[in-house]
Amino acid sequence: MADCIRSENDFLSLLDSYFNLTTPHQLSLRGDDCAELLMPEEVCLSSDLFLEDIHFRTSYFSYYELGYKALAVNLSDLAAAGARPLGFNMNLILPASMPRSDVEQLLEGMSALASRYNLPLTGGDLSRGDKLGLCISIWGEMGGARFLRRGQCRPGDTLFIVADSLPFPLGLARAGLYSLEKWGREGALVRQPQACKRHLLPNPLIEAGLSIARLAPQTSLMDLSDGLARDLPRLLGYEYEHAPRYPDAAPVSAFGARIDLPEALLHPELLAWCRQYEEIGEPRLNPVAQAMLGGEDYLLLGSTDSPEVLPLIEADCGVYCQVIGKVEKNCGIVVNDRAFSQNGFDHFNC
Amino acid sequence: MADCIRSENDFLSLLDSYFNLTTPHQLSLRGDDCAELLMPEEVCLSSDLFLEDIHFRTSYFSYYELGYKALAVNLSDLAAAGARPLGFNMNLILPASMPRSDVEQLLEGMSALASRYNLPLTGGDLSRGDKLGLCISIWGEMGGARFLRRGQCRPGDTLFIVADSLPFPLGLARAGLYSLEKWGREGALVRQPQACKRHLLPNPLIEAGLSIARLAPQTSLMDLSDGLARDLPRLLGYEYEHAPRYPDAAPVSAFGARIDLPEALLHPELLAWCRQYEEIGEPRLNPVAQAMLGGEDYLLLGSTDSPEVLPLIEADCGVYCQVIGKVEKNCGIVVNDRAFSQNGFDHFNC
Repeated sequence: MADCIRSENDFLSLLDSYFNLTTPHQLSLRGDDCAELLMPEEVCLSSDLFLEDIHFRTSYFSYYELGYKALAVNLSDLAAAGARPLGFNMNLILPASMPRSDVEQLLEGMSALASRYNLPLTGGDLSRGDKLGLCISIWGEMGGARFLRRGQCRPGDTLFIVADSLPFPLGLARAGLYSLEKWGREGALVRQPQACKRHLLPNPLIEAGLSIARLAPQTSLMDLSDGLARDLPRLLGYEYEHAPRYPDAAPVSAFGARIDLPEALLHPELLAWCRQYEEIGEPRLNPVAQAMLGGEDYLLLGSTDSPEVLPLIEADCGVYCQVIGKVEKNCGIVVNDRAFSQNGFDHFNC
Repeated sequence: MADCIRSENDFLSLLDSYFNLTTPHQLSLRGDDCAELLMPEEVCLSSDLFLEDIHFRTSYFSYYELGYKALAVNLSDLAAAGARPLGFNMNLILPASMPRSDVEQLLEGMSALASRYNLPLTGGDLSRGDKLGLCISIWGEMGGARFLRRGQCRPGDTLFIVADSLPFPLGLARAGLYSLEKWGREGALVRQPQACKRHLLPNPLIEAGLSIARLAPQTSLMDLSDGLARDLPRLLGYEYEHAPRYPDAAPVSAFGARIDLPEALLHPELLAWCRQYEEIGEPRLNPVAQAMLGGEDYLLLGSTDSPEVLPLIEADCGVYCQVIGKVEKNCGIVVNDRAFSQNGFDHFNC
């Protein structure tokens, strides 16, 4: 039988070999009821669940990738707020049979990303469970004069997407996910290496968020986790029914958007994936619709009334700001001159 | 089919009817990537998992009790730090088939406790899953001149347990748990009403923690979640192997304790539970050993060199401070003049 985690204390010792304990924001050591933290006056805080067979499969993720991605999706929320990360808590559900070496790989992947931002692991909880699961809470401080929010758009604003690489990767993680589901890790990595990498090891755009907060603090910003089709209405301020509103907010569902997303802009692996579906006799996929629906790219979606700032942001942090359209006074989403109504991903849509 | 949660937006709307959104510490409304929060300079933060069939069973918990307890165990960590709670994030794993009315009951129980402390729900995440699960992160500010910690004991210190009611409830939640497991909700509630209530609806001792922080800030304090047998060594500063140490900390495993726990002090329902085991032909249970092993009472365990302060704490917040023994220079735990070596609960002990 493989060597497993022997006790909670054994696990705490393991954490110390992967995560820095001494940062200026942390006053206490591991092992107490609470972490004692030095905080800036204004903090942004985010929590996310990352669960086996809901958010990932162990059949095609390495444990290194799982540890990395669990933290990456949380960092992406801070990026969307234009925040600088300061620390995180990790709650870990471990199957009893999980070999110690897999746990070590998971911590290795997480610490690789944590050390990029000198980010302390300040606490959390450990439990057995049938399936692997992580729940991370992360916080950060303002990168500019204020945190960035959704729902601050006005008609005429330029809509743009920030990407860390070209060709433009919108929808690419979806191609990776479907390829991994269909062909497994080895097959998918051969056919769609960049799409798989986008799904397995997404890059949180922290530096881009900080740059936008500093250079364009009036930008409305969010990260693309559930797909543009679902996230764009959120950026535009479409809220849930009866949602509380900011005093200066526009009326609910007031605005729409006109999007230009030419097929030629999309990533070759996304186009190839849509073709492959057809080649194996399945219904043809429309690449533009797939790009609209694709979640988990963790690009940033923004709206600004000063598009001249976009080249400055690109120069500041080496990202690509792709203009995709404009905010419109009339509600509804128009893509390539046609009304678009398909929804992105909702865990509870029925 | 019962009415279920229809979408994430449906769930967000539901949250608004149970949780206050407008507190002075919260700058943003629900629905953005991050919560924007006003923080004091020094914060204590804690996270806990609360998972079906690991930490609770739905067969004998009501959903109201589950929502209440999930928050209570987190509040108890703040109580142990002598902290005043300021806000919490909730991550919720919901089985797809869970009726909306059960979700409402869960939120009702949680909001009953949250409103006692005017505590905002500032964010979190929602996911489907096979089993119900919660992960709460909670934070607070100092109730006195500093946060209270474990591991600050010195030989000769008085060890005490803070309880919210008499007879002394140490081990009572364990009696409740075993009774609920054996007889189910109805049978256990008839036989052991107070023991069941201690397991189902534990009372976080926030006011007691604040009182200790104010009146006796040199106290070493923690909450009894895993049982006195397991938690006492933690209070005494027994750390995991190779753990980082505070510069002023005593050597590892330096201290022990001498505990007096007469059977007559223990709760009648705990004694009755031990007798009942014998009556139905199972091995006799030693009530003192059960009180030592029993977890989830969420009493506070403290160590002080000024025991004269204990009556002041009792008078200040209406709790009971039961002296249970002294910190000793020699390591090891002695209970009623006999060495005690049984361990409390460890999720990963093997």
